[in-house]
Amino acid sequence: MDTRPIGVFDSGLGGLTAVSEIMRLLPGEEIVYFGDTARVPYGTRSKDTIMRYVREDIDFLKTFNIKAVIMACGTASSVSLPQIGEEYDIPIIGVVKPASLAATSATRNGKIGIIGTPATIKSRSYEREILTLSPRAELHTAACPLFVPLVENGRTDPDDVVLFTMVEEYLTPIKNAGVDTLIMGCTHYPIIERAIAAFLGDSVTLINPGLEAAKYLTADGGIERGSGDGSYRFFVSDDRDGFLENASKFLGGKLCGTVMLKEMEK
Amino acid sequence: MDTRPIGVFDSGLGGLTAVSEIMRLLPGEEIVYFGDTARVPYGTRSKDTIMRYVREDIDFLKTFNIKAVIMACGTASSVSLPQIGEEYDIPIIGVVKPASLAATSATRNGKIGIIGTPATIKSRSYEREILTLSPRAELHTAACPLFVPLVENGRTDPDDVVLFTMVEEYLTPIKNAGVDTLIMGCTHYPIIERAIAAFLGDSVTLINPGLEAAKYLTADGGIERGSGDGSYRFFVSDDRDGFLENASKFLGGKLCGTVMLKEMEK
Repeated sequence: MDTRPIGVFDSGLGGLTAVSEIMRLLPGEEIVYFGDTARVPYGTRSKDTIMRYVREDIDFLKTFNIKAVIMACGTASSVSLPQIGEEYDIPIIGVVKPASLAATSATRNGKIGIIGTPATIKSRSYEREILTLSPRAELHTAACPLFVPLVENGRTDPDDVVLFTMVEEYLTPIKNAGVDTLIMGCTHYPIIERAIAAFLGDSVTLINPGLEAAKYLTADGGIERGSGDGSYRFFVSDDRDGFLENASKFLGGKLCGTVMLKEMEK
Repeated sequence: MDTRPIGVFDSGLGGLTAVSEIMRLLPGEEIVYFGDTARVPYGTRSKDTIMRYVREDIDFLKTFNIKAVIMACGTASSVSLPQIGEEYDIPIIGVVKPASLAATSATRNGKIGIIGTPATIKSRSYEREILTLSPRAELHTAACPLFVPLVENGRTDPDDVVLFTMVEEYLTPIKNAGVDTLIMGCTHYPIIERAIAAFLGDSVTLINPGLEAAKYLTADGGIERGSGDGSYRFFVSDDRDGFLENASKFLGGKLCGTVMLKEMEK
């Protein structure tokens, strides 16, 4: 039984959707979360900058004697893995591989859609991973740059005309292509899952990368369930008040645990 | 004749709307622009962080032997002035004072609206400045957090349902209050001036802080028109490609000048 904590990081608060899945799947685990709110968003940074941020984020989490890291940031996973995994002596689990495995396993017609931030889509990381697993898959991608600000501004109601218009605009080509599986390639997107599902219809399976990463951690990451009491520590690099205000939206419930500030050098 | 350059900075590309006004009003001037794209947005940072960024931005511009700084960032102006002005031996001109002067001079019924990022509105900087100038002014404010991402994603057509819905939602209380003057308290907002004007109608005067800062620089800032050939140097702290792609949108015309990367320590 390995009772060391699990580390989770994201560029901001979105990774809390992954934390909520770990809490549900592995209720006994200790979790240390780091949201790099002083340097958010990663999606518009250069590759060198993102690599440096990722190393600093992992190094910070490692000070808590963690047994594994979930990189709950689509941009960071796309840009820094697999390279960064080789630099550390604990498993570094991104969201791309688990979500790609889930998508290739879920699809029946081989047509898979991928949505994400511009940086994630541009990196083609999901495409590479899926084509390795399933060389004949037909892939359709769309960058959805406004979804993150819409979620962060609370526009999550499927009936909201602003959200609905953007969902329709971003997803129409993917819907028309006849995909039966869609990877929601950004940790913010599960918050608008209902709007996405309403537009695409029941026949399309939605893949939540945070959930798949949490499953992967237990199934393939070799992580045994800890016997702790499920304690949670949250760190942000800026705007602790904003975290306190918005965390419950991403966690899907009340924020339980301490919230501290950890300044980062850029 | 003081032929030293004018320095202009913003957290991102928005300050280019101020640069375009300086180019128009003072065509002979040399301008050095710094867009802190590695650390954008400032609006969600803490006050201490913003103060540090502003000092670093000004210190960088000062390496070009500038004669004045226009702080084209509403958030930075609101949070750091007047304090920061006392720390330097050249004029540091924000957008708050010039825009407030213009608004109090333009209003006929004394009812002034102010829109901006959440940080700008929360700082109440425009309110303080206007009430000093015109103690009986009636002020109506609205934070418009989605305007910046909408502009950055090119949703600037007044007929766009997404933009129009947000304009209507943010500005209805201000319109209903009967303001006759509105300060567009963020350098991104002049890009959607047509949509704002279409909703508020002709009777409302829109104040563009970048334009007012440029006017202030000549009228009250004691800056003589340089005799240079109007050369322009642009620096960004990250994503030079994004700058090259989007600068013309903010400049209202073709990008003329060199664009270089300047990394900043955080």
